[in-house]
Amino acid sequence: MPAPARRHVRLNLFAHAVGHHGAAWRAPGSAVLRLGDITYWEELAQIAERGRLDAIFLADGQSIAPAGAERGPTWFLEPITVLTALARATERIGLVTTVSSTFWDPFHAARLLASLDHISHGRAGINVVTSMTDAEARNHGMAALPAHEERYATAEEFLRVLHGLWDSWPRESIRADPGGVYVDPSMLRPLEHHGDSFAVDGPLNVPTPPQGRPVLFQAGASEPGRDLAARWAEGIYAVAWDLESAHAYRTDVRARAAALGRDPDLIAVMPGLVTYVGSTEEEVRRLQADLHSRLPVEHSLRQLAFFVGQDTSGWELDAPVPPLPPLEEFTGPKGRYATVLRIIRTARPTVRELLGFLAAGGGHATVIGTPETVADEIERWVDAGAADGFNLMPPTLPGGIEDFVDQVVPVLQERGRFRREYAGSTLREHLGLPRP
Amino acid sequence: MPAPARRHVRLNLFAHAVGHHGAAWRAPGSAVLRLGDITYWEELAQIAERGRLDAIFLADGQSIAPAGAERGPTWFLEPITVLTALARATERIGLVTTVSSTFWDPFHAARLLASLDHISHGRAGINVVTSMTDAEARNHGMAALPAHEERYATAEEFLRVLHGLWDSWPRESIRADPGGVYVDPSMLRPLEHHGDSFAVDGPLNVPTPPQGRPVLFQAGASEPGRDLAARWAEGIYAVAWDLESAHAYRTDVRARAAALGRDPDLIAVMPGLVTYVGSTEEEVRRLQADLHSRLPVEHSLRQLAFFVGQDTSGWELDAPVPPLPPLEEFTGPKGRYATVLRIIRTARPTVRELLGFLAAGGGHATVIGTPETVADEIERWVDAGAADGFNLMPPTLPGGIEDFVDQVVPVLQERGRFRREYAGSTLREHLGLPRP
Repeated sequence: MPAPARRHVRLNLFAHAVGHHGAAWRAPGSAVLRLGDITYWEELAQIAERGRLDAIFLADGQSIAPAGAERGPTWFLEPITVLTALARATERIGLVTTVSSTFWDPFHAARLLASLDHISHGRAGINVVTSMTDAEARNHGMAALPAHEERYATAEEFLRVLHGLWDSWPRESIRADPGGVYVDPSMLRPLEHHGDSFAVDGPLNVPTPPQGRPVLFQAGASEPGRDLAARWAEGIYAVAWDLESAHAYRTDVRARAAALGRDPDLIAVMPGLVTYVGSTEEEVRRLQADLHSRLPVEHSLRQLAFFVGQDTSGWELDAPVPPLPPLEEFTGPKGRYATVLRIIRTARPTVRELLGFLAAGGGHATVIGTPETVADEIERWVDAGAADGFNLMPPTLPGGIEDFVDQVVPVLQERGRFRREYAGSTLREHLGLPRP
Repeated sequence: MPAPARRHVRLNLFAHAVGHHGAAWRAPGSAVLRLGDITYWEELAQIAERGRLDAIFLADGQSIAPAGAERGPTWFLEPITVLTALARATERIGLVTTVSSTFWDPFHAARLLASLDHISHGRAGINVVTSMTDAEARNHGMAALPAHEERYATAEEFLRVLHGLWDSWPRESIRADPGGVYVDPSMLRPLEHHGDSFAVDGPLNVPTPPQGRPVLFQAGASEPGRDLAARWAEGIYAVAWDLESAHAYRTDVRARAAALGRDPDLIAVMPGLVTYVGSTEEEVRRLQADLHSRLPVEHSLRQLAFFVGQDTSGWELDAPVPPLPPLEEFTGPKGRYATVLRIIRTARPTVRELLGFLAAGGGHATVIGTPETVADEIERWVDAGAADGFNLMPPTLPGGIEDFVDQVVPVLQERGRFRREYAGSTLREHLGLPRP
């Protein structure tokens, strides 16, 4: 009798610059000068597709860098254009972009995403964020970032408008009757939306995309963020330092979704996961130590200042981290701040040690070891109900995703936990999501 | 002694739906069901590149159709995503998209265009328009289209911001010094722009694109439109029914540019040109008559209503066109209205005859005949100083551009009027424009 099928793991490549480690671009031979070269991104996507990953996932921000331009590289190419190029360099892998509901006009956003979904034959996804900094606001006609509650109310309305627009010009309305009409106007569904943040009549001037709607990702950790995710998300990019916090987060979001009448199994919770992979644990530790050693301390301190909303310039590196205000009083991104508090509470690190913890991926789960060790940890989280899969955040790129695809993926496949071939052709099919 | 080199002609393919003729989509075998299929657009671009054309040019609009969804196809895929895909399916041809300064946030627009310029290695162009309809305004949070003067004031400010953003993060500032900084912040040039329409601090989060700035096209025919073109345009998509009006327009815009201290030879004036090509003139007339016969009269009347700002539903088809208000009183797009007035004054057509004139390209110059006839007419306009080249508007696609590339281009090449190979690799180089 065959063993019951074990739950498959979802895996995205979260592709950022030349890796998520703050010093990745300083390593000899890094791809840092190729960030404006689309073939670099095509190579990343092709490696991820060779590994049969669900999607390539791009973050986005609306200013040159939150903590000063002298940091490592953040943005270079705009992500929707990148993903459109990737659509033509790959065949199956999903293409997820980040879009800020605080700064995007919903008609433009719905249209670009629908177009990407057509061009990629149903592989588009959208990760809706509410943005974080005043610098971004000042690039878009605002004096400062709107308050947290207001941003989440806008995000809610933004998603309502996006869904309405994607439904507004059904494919079936296209008759293309040589003796009659091209479109049957009676089948169009204008929105006539007049809300607090947006006024959009519709219909969209792109027909309903192949997936019905691009797959909707979300990443909120605050109360309104969790509610938004519970109401709308089909995938969640979560922040969790350890299995316990991931489990608590996933349990909470699933309960909120169920309370709203949604099937929680149709939400893939995918925490960020930083992996250092090698044939021996010692080799991997050396790799990690080498990266850490390249990190200029003052830059890391500035990044930490942003994460915790404090002036860190006077902190003693080898003293314990000074006391920080409780989570409720913090007005920036809650998930990462909660992680910092959790690391401090559980590990009682010095400032220098805390910087090390945060150097790659800013407090996301980190696994270091052989391919088997990494696969074990992935299975442990999924089997414990702490994750449906992971948003992979390799410390270096393309090396880190090559290591994962060539070494960890085969182990997961061998154990029956990951696909050997794509069964479907759309991102919805990869993630087991129904067409709306 | 070799003859002096004769002026080279500039040629763009203005690719719209399945052709510019209102009945193109009704013809048997039309590509109308492939508009959402990116390979259709890739084929068009590859045909145009085979013909060594300067650029493929896409229009844009922000609502499903200005005159009702039962018209032929207008929009399907969004043009920036289309051109990004085309960047990877072609190697040399320029990629020009239309962007509305009335409805786009300049930071997003500058960023998307800069990214396209990087991805295409310097082939991006932007055609800035101020848009035309209330339906478009109502998709972007406005109750109605702003007044003409206001839209042009906004366009002026939009272009200032775009240029500032493209200059704001110079490539030379990227040091990528493993022991130091990634970017030298002292080389960044924030805008701190605070104008009537936009507030943008900058810098852009995409480095200066390969061309310095994407090539700027414009299409204004009104007084403020001509001033805007004279001040900013490097290419102009003009509307001219005949050589005389084209000559008057080009002369006027060149004079305005010279008065502003610009070199008029660095502005390529490219009127729209509808071509019907075949081996005999009789064959071509048959093709044209066949297309005209497929045109449903009531739809054409509605389109005419939009062009002239009048209710045309009661107009008698076989009576002369009723008197129309003078150009000064018309508040819609001036260029096309001026053409309608000119056709009426010179040809005194019935309503049905006027519809025929307007069926393909809405009053743009139309040439019908053998490849030699079409090449003659192109040379005649260029030699008379009425045009620097043309924005080709084939009545049907892909057939119409295939005919042009395979039949007319070789004649122009034979006569030394068109390139046989691309000499440069950027759109600026194709058009003989300096890097700013």
